[in-house]
Amino acid sequence: MLKVILIAMLIVCTATFGQTTVKDSTHRAVAKTLIDSALIHQKGYQILDELLQMGPRLSGSETSLKAIHWARAKMEALGFDHVFLQPVMVPHWVRGDTESLTIASHGALKGHSLAITALGGSVGTGADGILAEVIEVNTLQQLRELGERGEGKIIFLNGYWDQSEVQSFRAYGRAVTHRGLGAIEAGKIGALACLIRSVTSRYDNVPHTGSMRRYPENSRKVPGAALGQLDADFLSQQIAANPGLKLHLKLSCQTLPDVQSYNVIADLTGSEKPDEIVLVSGHFDSWDVGDGAHDDATGCIQALEVLDLFKRVGIQPKRTVRCVFYINEENGIRGALEYAAASKENGWYHIAAMESDRGAFTPRGFSVDADSSIINHMQQWLPYLKMASIEWIRKGGSGVDVGQLKDAVSRIGYVPDGQRYFDYHHSANDVFEAVHPREFELGAAAMAILTYLISEEGLDLPQ
Amino acid sequence: MLKVILIAMLIVCTATFGQTTVKDSTHRAVAKTLIDSALIHQKGYQILDELLQMGPRLSGSETSLKAIHWARAKMEALGFDHVFLQPVMVPHWVRGDTESLTIASHGALKGHSLAITALGGSVGTGADGILAEVIEVNTLQQLRELGERGEGKIIFLNGYWDQSEVQSFRAYGRAVTHRGLGAIEAGKIGALACLIRSVTSRYDNVPHTGSMRRYPENSRKVPGAALGQLDADFLSQQIAANPGLKLHLKLSCQTLPDVQSYNVIADLTGSEKPDEIVLVSGHFDSWDVGDGAHDDATGCIQALEVLDLFKRVGIQPKRTVRCVFYINEENGIRGALEYAAASKENGWYHIAAMESDRGAFTPRGFSVDADSSIINHMQQWLPYLKMASIEWIRKGGSGVDVGQLKDAVSRIGYVPDGQRYFDYHHSANDVFEAVHPREFELGAAAMAILTYLISEEGLDLPQ
Repeated sequence: MLKVILIAMLIVCTATFGQTTVKDSTHRAVAKTLIDSALIHQKGYQILDELLQMGPRLSGSETSLKAIHWARAKMEALGFDHVFLQPVMVPHWVRGDTESLTIASHGALKGHSLAITALGGSVGTGADGILAEVIEVNTLQQLRELGERGEGKIIFLNGYWDQSEVQSFRAYGRAVTHRGLGAIEAGKIGALACLIRSVTSRYDNVPHTGSMRRYPENSRKVPGAALGQLDADFLSQQIAANPGLKLHLKLSCQTLPDVQSYNVIADLTGSEKPDEIVLVSGHFDSWDVGDGAHDDATGCIQALEVLDLFKRVGIQPKRTVRCVFYINEENGIRGALEYAAASKENGWYHIAAMESDRGAFTPRGFSVDADSSIINHMQQWLPYLKMASIEWIRKGGSGVDVGQLKDAVSRIGYVPDGQRYFDYHHSANDVFEAVHPREFELGAAAMAILTYLISEEGLDLPQ
Repeated sequence: MLKVILIAMLIVCTATFGQTTVKDSTHRAVAKTLIDSALIHQKGYQILDELLQMGPRLSGSETSLKAIHWARAKMEALGFDHVFLQPVMVPHWVRGDTESLTIASHGALKGHSLAITALGGSVGTGADGILAEVIEVNTLQQLRELGERGEGKIIFLNGYWDQSEVQSFRAYGRAVTHRGLGAIEAGKIGALACLIRSVTSRYDNVPHTGSMRRYPENSRKVPGAALGQLDADFLSQQIAANPGLKLHLKLSCQTLPDVQSYNVIADLTGSEKPDEIVLVSGHFDSWDVGDGAHDDATGCIQALEVLDLFKRVGIQPKRTVRCVFYINEENGIRGALEYAAASKENGWYHIAAMESDRGAFTPRGFSVDADSSIINHMQQWLPYLKMASIEWIRKGGSGVDVGQLKDAVSRIGYVPDGQRYFDYHHSANDVFEAVHPREFELGAAAMAILTYLISEEGLDLPQ
């Protein structure tokens, strides 16, 4: 009897071991094939170049619509299934032609021009601009404490980027409140405008834009703009040396009525479980300075390349792999909200919703918003992901767009190396030349490997 | 009795736990302080700028000697102990003024210039240059198989960089044999010169130099040079389209007699075990195109910053921390050999010899050449190193220079992200602007943390 049991155990063990080995070999081979195709052909990088030659894609802009139709045609040309546009009404803020800040007092300084960019959503200054004395503060608290002393002044909210913070997204999270609230708080104390120091890790003179929060209803709306870091330091020095220094700010930006725009969506239909969706995505809109390369053309084209890689290497996914280019992440999240509403209405079942919106630098990890059991399960796949330089899978936030899909079984943020991202973010620095072909393609390969594993194995864990 | 034992156990546990916690807290606090100081002050980055403004530092060149004296003065100014120069005789290869490759036949093509750089150690062509028909091959094997057909020809060894290889140093290892052996093998079959495709991961037209192997004694010595990748493709197309295509190659490079040079060395003397040395290093020489920023000014200045960080944050190391700038890594390793000889002669005891010579990109890991027990011990320090983005410590190769210290208890290579390094390596691309301040400083901090831990705790493991 014992002998029978031992033989039975041996058979079971061999079978199990054999199966694991075959599966392991297959996963390794698929991962290697995906990486090879991404790095050798660099096809996504060429498509990225094509897209970025059109220019920036601010929500509601003509270029954004042109690019949306280009994206649809591209997905159709690549042979994806069921390519469609999902209508989304988006805000339509425009910068206009005028944007200047000059020193307006103190002899030799008078007329000296400083590098600025209006913040997204800001009101303009009117044609004559705003001519007023400037007061410098370093924190929102100091701004609020100005009280009446701020009346009729231009506030210079000269905050700082915490260079000691290794995780640059954390430093950004702390610094960005000045961009969001500076002008709103300045309006409350009767100031005429608010200038902030650009929210960036890079010490240069390129100003960085980005959205303000919405002005509160019935509030005094005063303009907000960001100074390049070198000019922020220069202005700070001049204020200290020249009491009563005056500035002349001119901004022609304004918010027009909402316009029609679209999310762009394409599927590779699943062969076994077509109703289970593995979503890969980026956001298609950008700011209007630079070309929105790392933010977030790269995320979109990496998502597109996941599907194209599957086609190139002949993977027919078991579950449906869907690519979504969300519109309007930067100033409204309308695209993601519309997609989430459609998902609820249509009963779409997302077992995973992945987003790439942290730049296209060398892969480091995946941050996963899901039950711990699912994350533990995913961590078993690390040997395949490490082939594409992924070091870890951790519980954490996913991203602004996929974060709206509350019902998804898992929401996943692709996390590349983060040291350079905020050098480019929301500025004229964010152009094609700032993207490294191998780093971009490795990211696409890493996303493709994880997409393949989820599509192949699912996330239906034993209870 | 049981009660007594339980109480005793509790006391022991608390003491042990307490001690571990104190040590852990201290290590964490020190790591955080080192990172803060590196990232906030970016002092090493400023010193790097100062160094790179002097220009490249090819062994034996005037600039290399000027930079060596600057380095010594800098270490003295920073207050390091026992700063000294160690004499080393180095090879003295010079490029000279002339370096050109033009097409010399076929009408409209005639006179078309191609981007090249002579390979380090190459002989020149003589003033009239070499005018000959070109034959293209793709491998050394094909070159050898040319036999007599190669006589009197210029060989174009158009190899390739394996873009599918994620680990770029492996791709380099495979591709670089063409640079090392092309001209030597061409000489053997009676060819007049050998052109190679530049050994780089970047598709641009910047040619990359680097050393050839030494010509064998009494061999025919023919020149070697590298083409930019775009021009390599252009030349390949023209050869296919125009049978009998001729080239005119002019190189004025030559090898002069050896000259006197130096390693630069400084200590922070250990407070408890001054005779145990933790060495941190880079190589100070570079190629003569670009400014040798990532290769390897960054490694030297990161090593220097380890000592300066200790001084800035007030760490008095228990063991001696020594900074070495090796001369002549690129074409002779004479500096490392001299240092290793002096080490043997003086009985220097290196418990660790660390090298940074893979660029100054974001930290990924440390590759350690030591007994597995030592590596396991080091891996316990990963929580502190992860604070500076180090993900792993693995058994593996260390580096060309510290690899000469065969008696060291451990030899350690600092491993940053590797995707970009060979874009810059040995070319005009390798300048200050190619170094990212935060990535450079994080590397210095990671090296400082590991240096601190080894200096503080040693590697004397329980047997």
